[in-house]
Amino acid sequence: MDFATIIGMIAGAAFIAIAIFMGGSFSQFVDYPSITIVVGGGTAATLIRFPIGGVLNAFATGGKVAFTHKKVDPKELIQQIAEMGDIVRKNGPLGLENVELDEPNLKKGSQYIADGYDAGFIRETMELERDQFLTRLSEGQRVFKSLGDAAPAFGMIGTLVGLVQMLANMSDPSAIGPAMAVALLTTMYGAVLANLICLPLSDKLNSKLELEDINQTLIIDGIMSIRDGKSPALITQMLTAYLPEKQRDSLEDAA
Amino acid sequence: MDFATIIGMIAGAAFIAIAIFMGGSFSQFVDYPSITIVVGGGTAATLIRFPIGGVLNAFATGGKVAFTHKKVDPKELIQQIAEMGDIVRKNGPLGLENVELDEPNLKKGSQYIADGYDAGFIRETMELERDQFLTRLSEGQRVFKSLGDAAPAFGMIGTLVGLVQMLANMSDPSAIGPAMAVALLTTMYGAVLANLICLPLSDKLNSKLELEDINQTLIIDGIMSIRDGKSPALITQMLTAYLPEKQRDSLEDAA
Amino acid sequence: MDFATIIGMIAGAAFIAIAIFMGGSFSQFVDYPSITIVVGGGTAATLIRFPIGGVLNAFATGGKVAFTHKKVDPKELIQQIAEMGDIVRKNGPLGLENVELDEPNLKKGSQYIADGYDAGFIRETMELERDQFLTRLSEGQRVFKSLGDAAPAFGMIGTLVGLVQMLANMSDPSAIGPAMAVALLTTMYGAVLANLICLPLSDKLNSKLELEDINQTLIIDGIMSIRDGKSPALITQMLTAYLPEKQRDSLEDAA
Amino acid sequence: MDFATIIGMIAGAAFIAIAIFMGGSFSQFVDYPSITIVVGGGTAATLIRFPIGGVLNAFATGGKVAFTHKKVDPKELIQQIAEMGDIVRKNGPLGLENVELDEPNLKKGSQYIADGYDAGFIRETMELERDQFLTRLSEGQRVFKSLGDAAPAFGMIGTLVGLVQMLANMSDPSAIGPAMAVALLTTMYGAVLANLICLPLSDKLNSKLELEDINQTLIIDGIMSIRDGKSPALITQMLTAYLPEKQRDSLEDAA
Amino acid sequence: MDFATIIGMIAGAAFIAIAIFMGGSFSQFVDYPSITIVVGGGTAATLIRFPIGGVLNAFATGGKVAFTHKKVDPKELIQQIAEMGDIVRKNGPLGLENVELDEPNLKKGSQYIADGYDAGFIRETMELERDQFLTRLSEGQRVFKSLGDAAPAFGMIGTLVGLVQMLANMSDPSAIGPAMAVALLTTMYGAVLANLICLPLSDKLNSKLELEDINQTLIIDGIMSIRDGKSPALITQMLTAYLPEKQRDSLEDAA
Repeated sequence: MDFATIIGMIAGAAFIAIAIFMGGSFSQFVDYPSITIVVGGGTAATLIRFPIGGVLNAFATGGKVAFTHKKVDPKELIQQIAEMGDIVRKNGPLGLENVELDEPNLKKGSQYIADGYDAGFIRETMELERDQFLTRLSEGQRVFKSLGDAAPAFGMIGTLVGLVQMLANMSDPSAIGPAMAVALLTTMYGAVLANLICLPLSDKLNSKLELEDINQTLIIDGIMSIRDGKSPALITQMLTAYLPEKQRDSLEDAA
Repeated sequence: MDFATIIGMIAGAAFIAIAIFMGGSFSQFVDYPSITIVVGGGTAATLIRFPIGGVLNAFATGGKVAFTHKKVDPKELIQQIAEMGDIVRKNGPLGLENVELDEPNLKKGSQYIADGYDAGFIRETMELERDQFLTRLSEGQRVFKSLGDAAPAFGMIGTLVGLVQMLANMSDPSAIGPAMAVALLTTMYGAVLANLICLPLSDKLNSKLELEDINQTLIIDGIMSIRDGKSPALITQMLTAYLPEKQRDSLEDAA
Repeated sequence: MDFATIIGMIAGAAFIAIAIFMGGSFSQFVDYPSITIVVGGGTAATLIRFPIGGVLNAFATGGKVAFTHKKVDPKELIQQIAEMGDIVRKNGPLGLENVELDEPNLKKGSQYIADGYDAGFIRETMELERDQFLTRLSEGQRVFKSLGDAAPAFGMIGTLVGLVQMLANMSDPSAIGPAMAVALLTTMYGAVLANLICLPLSDKLNSKLELEDINQTLIIDGIMSIRDGKSPALITQMLTAYLPEKQRDSLEDAA
Repeated sequence: MDFATIIGMIAGAAFIAIAIFMGGSFSQFVDYPSITIVVGGGTAATLIRFPIGGVLNAFATGGKVAFTHKKVDPKELIQQIAEMGDIVRKNGPLGLENVELDEPNLKKGSQYIADGYDAGFIRETMELERDQFLTRLSEGQRVFKSLGDAAPAFGMIGTLVGLVQMLANMSDPSAIGPAMAVALLTTMYGAVLANLICLPLSDKLNSKLELEDINQTLIIDGIMSIRDGKSPALITQMLTAYLPEKQRDSLEDAA
Repeated sequence: MDFATIIGMIAGAAFIAIAIFMGGSFSQFVDYPSITIVVGGGTAATLIRFPIGGVLNAFATGGKVAFTHKKVDPKELIQQIAEMGDIVRKNGPLGLENVELDEPNLKKGSQYIADGYDAGFIRETMELERDQFLTRLSEGQRVFKSLGDAAPAFGMIGTLVGLVQMLANMSDPSAIGPAMAVALLTTMYGAVLANLICLPLSDKLNSKLELEDINQTLIIDGIMSIRDGKSPALITQMLTAYLPEKQRDSLEDAA
């Protein structure tokens, strides 16, 4: 679980809810046509920008990754891979069958070695999966960014719709205030959707993307080295050297 | 047909229409002078930026491509080209006459080979067509971007025109509300035109442009390889290697 | 004549004028202090940014180029230059005296050859003129961009001046509306000046600049080749190869 | 102590406080729900973007560095390092034990030499510490930037919440003014938090980061040279040459 | 004297003053708390970003350079340097004592040659002075940019302070208008300070910086060549070739 994402969203929503409750009832702040324009319109504008599958995919993958994906430290991965290399040198590929591994792709690669698959097949399969996973993450990141850009615009459109309706029928002065309150709600929905949900999630997916790019490439190279029977010391050295200097510095930083 | 574009536009318009109907009559939201300023003014500002032919062209080509252009997977193209190479090696160039092909340029290239045209002529003709098609797409993309930037500005200009007229004649208090409603409509038109139509279409054309650049170059190189009688395996390898690594990853992603 | 620029500006002004006439009299929309602040203030801010000569120059050259400069297709130029090369090979340099040429710099270069000037002198003189012309165009482009950025800011300043004056003297309620109308005019002037005139003109000059850079360099190289008595075929090949690939594609696109 | 940061913040707060006192009582400007939305919401949006530890860390490290970190001139550092090199050549590594050093990392490195540690160990340890320090600074810079971007957005959200509450209950006209005053406070808090605190602090941390990157790398290379017994003249020359030309010019400039 | 800067500022202020006088008295537009917030707050935010000395320095150097610094044409400089080279070849270094020179650094360099200083000393001293001068200019440019970004933000903060005070005390309806007028003044001050003074001055300093970078480097290289007794023709050729092509084109353009 990624607690920062969950805590941030709940806390942000709570702060807004507190401010609302301190000033009156919550029901004033629910207006379905406004929600329709902001969420529906923002999603529609995003649908034009991306293929349909991509948008659905973005909500599924992006949402899942942002909330549940565990951050894995590349240095820990290197250590695990080195230990796996040690086992293979001592007990042969079958020794990997008893190793407990958390990272799903590392586990899959380990299984491939134990099953004695061809090196070319392993690399190709794992690279394909990595590329597809990174593509989905990147698509998710861009879909949330697009939603975060469109939501405030549709919030403003909804407020204008409400204002026009209010101004065109001003026979009852006592209705002006509440009508304007409802009109402003759309702008508020757009601002909350963009600033509390979409844009932070997009940034989160982006930093997860950077970290996963490093980790998955590490795993693939590590698995190939284990399969070739390289020594643990050599594997550690290779994988560490492999990381570009800047990424080494920013490892703690990302995600 | 590109259903994402169509669904997105219809859905976006529907969400706004629903919000309008829930609050009153639709006729309040139609004001011809406002439409004149936003659509006319935005188009005029775009006309200054681009040659006239380019703007008309952008609406024709850009509109057609955004709504109807089918996305073609480069990997599928490579497979088709390899099969065509197989046919040519087995049955000679005339064997291509019976192959059913969807992609219009691939079909045209295939016809050129069957008709026995000179290699230099085929490459030159096809590259010229690709460049003209990509230029039209890119022009369309920039015209929609320029419209999307100009529309909100002219929306604001129209609202100011309406406000000045309303404020200068405030003898009848009951007319103030409706007059202001009409003034605000222009801002709304500008926001809808930009955020629901122009900017998403511009982004769509941009991603289609990137995909077509890859696909058409693939087709040209593939056609040349078929004409040279290269083996299907070699063609597949060449065309795959030809794709820059980053584009390989983002193929599923674009369009 | 560059009809796109003229049509765009007239059409844009007309659309705004139509909206004004449909809502009342035109005289409500003329306010000299507002014009003073937007045009004067915007120009003053631009004067600080650029040397005085440059600003005057920008209006003269920039204005002239945007409205009257004819777009010349580089491919047509190459053809004309090749024909001129043919004439020189057949009739000697003096044969150029009878050739009718539209492009002023091509004409000047042709005259230099006919007059038998030194190659070094011709190249130096023509390059100096090209550089000065491009510098003036680029200065014009940046001056219009600066004006387009400053105009809305001074529009807002003028509106604030008007609002402060109105709010400080609210003894006569019936004067509030018209005073506010006048105050808003400044914002409208700034928006029209920027979005209908300055920013589109700046973009126009920019694309003319790119095209002229290609054309004038083509002309200079062509003139030098003609003077050296190169064959038309060689000239065509050299000049075409000279164009960078990207510019070849975007030739139809620019200006 | 970094007096510029402290003076700037106190002066900025004082100027706002003066303007408030000149116009009335200070208590009108305190509203706890508004503070909750701006500070809480902005922090929540930042929590989604970064790992929790990173945000806490950013406040601790970033705050400490921005307020207390002393700027050290790289040229002074080079001089100190050269003097240390002189002492080591004259009195051996133990001579460093009596040298008074302000810069904590220079002091630590000097101790390592005096204690006779291995060159590889010294470099590795010092580089690790430098990287962790720079990573914390960079994280702090990005957290304050994110807060500075989120604060005005949540200020607007809070104002909208207040306006909706006010507009929905307009039975008592005399309450409208004060309610709107409270609503506007949130926007003001967001603007002050962003423009007086978060964005300037982010810029400050960024320039400190650039200077520390140069200084710490200088110190590490200097310590390694001292340990190798290089001559003071050679050390000075090496370290000066090491600085990229652009950084040499901007040394006085940074921080 | 740089008349463009002076004329631009006076003209801009005059246009605003004219608009003010045409609408009423000037005293309505002076409000000391508003000036305090905009100038004081903007300066405070800038103080946090830069070291104190840098901010004072920026006002001194930046102000002086923007208003008084004479633009020197690099081509004229090259000519002067070539003439100086001629004198040295004819009359020896002492011949330079009688040459009248306007550019202060060229004069200083000329004096160094006449006084027979060492080549290394001359280059080092002159490069140090050039770097310090360019650093001060660049610091001034960034300080004015930071002020120009902060001023509108503090203008908005001041207006919010005024609005809150006005709204909290609406017992006297006749006081609402004037109070709101005063509140809006702060926004106006911020917009004028940014758009008429800070941002244009920042751009001006930037273009002066680019020109001075070329000129001072030219002068240093020229002085070194004169001291080495190079021929005027060689000096001219060297210095002209030294200018990067792009800068040659834009020489008339900068400053």
